[in-house]
Amino acid sequence: MYKLVLIRHGESTWNLENRFTGWVDVDLTETGVNQAKNAGKLLKNQGYDFDVAYTSVLKRATRTLWHVLDEMDRSWLPVVHNWRLNERHYGGLQGLNKGETAKKFGDAQVLVWRRSYDTPPPPLDQASADIEVQNPRYARLKPGQVPLTECLKDTVERVMPFWNEAMAPAIKAGKRIVVAAHGNSIRALIKYLDQVSDEDIVNLNIPNGIPLVYELDEQLKPLRHYYLGDSQAIALAEAAVSAQGKA
Amino acid sequence: MYKLVLIRHGESTWNLENRFTGWVDVDLTETGVNQAKNAGKLLKNQGYDFDVAYTSVLKRATRTLWHVLDEMDRSWLPVVHNWRLNERHYGGLQGLNKGETAKKFGDAQVLVWRRSYDTPPPPLDQASADIEVQNPRYARLKPGQVPLTECLKDTVERVMPFWNEAMAPAIKAGKRIVVAAHGNSIRALIKYLDQVSDEDIVNLNIPNGIPLVYELDEQLKPLRHYYLGDSQAIALAEAAVSAQGKA
Repeated sequence: MYKLVLIRHGESTWNLENRFTGWVDVDLTETGVNQAKNAGKLLKNQGYDFDVAYTSVLKRATRTLWHVLDEMDRSWLPVVHNWRLNERHYGGLQGLNKGETAKKFGDAQVLVWRRSYDTPPPPLDQASADIEVQNPRYARLKPGQVPLTECLKDTVERVMPFWNEAMAPAIKAGKRIVVAAHGNSIRALIKYLDQVSDEDIVNLNIPNGIPLVYELDEQLKPLRHYYLGDSQAIALAEAAVSAQGKA
Repeated sequence: MYKLVLIRHGESTWNLENRFTGWVDVDLTETGVNQAKNAGKLLKNQGYDFDVAYTSVLKRATRTLWHVLDEMDRSWLPVVHNWRLNERHYGGLQGLNKGETAKKFGDAQVLVWRRSYDTPPPPLDQASADIEVQNPRYARLKPGQVPLTECLKDTVERVMPFWNEAMAPAIKAGKRIVVAAHGNSIRALIKYLDQVSDEDIVNLNIPNGIPLVYELDEQLKPLRHYYLGDSQAIALAEAAVSAQGKA
């Protein structure tokens, strides 16, 4: 039996400001730092250990991972960064306040953008897109791979090659892996692992900074999954994510 | 022409307490954190950029690197950890205060241990060695590869395979690399690059947290080298390293 540990980054400055973040590289808040440290302590106290860590190329996930590894005295572990673990690209909504966007376009439209499986928000304007493409962290991507916007379906499609080509083989080779990523890249993995329907996946809320453990069989089919930590805190965190984006 | 940037970790708690550190995994002081951040700012302001970073499996070097990358907005860069970049193993002296050791054994003996090229200090006791071998960060080493003590010659011999097999090929492949390491693993690299004699290398002092730039030709022969930053600060830092270990 294998174990896979998924951690959504701690609270970011734009989580706090209730803004659509996507690929914008915002930092953790002090609360977010503490969530990450607590996740590391929890994993250490419960006897978890890892051989390799995966994260996105965004600093809120990287920093969360660094704090987790630090608390576990594992700052020397190999860390693999990959853009495929980035948050869903939020297109032209990136930077906008979720509440104000709901006031302007209506709760219903924002709910579609946030929770439809296959309707992407309006795309990023070309000037911003040009700047993003030139960012050195995306230098090795092929033309067109940097998205202008994404629905969750798009995110799933770009996350999965990394699961298939890097993470799944590592797990099958006996590596104990931890993934510090984002609400939607984690949703993508869960959708695949648990075969969640397109309708249900959009209502699944991943709380910030709480380790989510998947126990997998030899074919990497999930046997069970559970969050580590206090169940009440987890429920509150899930509800907080769900309540975002209402006007 | 290639550029190679070497950075000795920022001040550690045992630098401050003037203790022999070696492979003991002590943390940075607040001064050390600031030195690391300043190194990152300096590199960024002077237009340096990197494709891959190398460091040891000790947290004072890793953390220095993280601060440097953070300041450069490069926290997404690939980082390679390798035990061969660790500090010189200080054997049975690890944990002892340099001044007290000098009082006990005499300045001359301590100077031999610190500055002889090929005389190792007394070995680590077997109980401590057994614990060190079991540390998971050394799990992939072959039996006998974890040293009980090292003279600088031993350190040079275990650093060089990593230069030859990983770092030199990366540089020749056009990768811009930064190395966050330790006084003696950096000495080892400099001894090889500049063909420094056994006598002279032991008197070369590497200041904490100041980027040292090597410009290399196509065969990786050094053309010139220089520290980045204020020359007076560099001189003071070198003198401070030199003054350690006197009674």
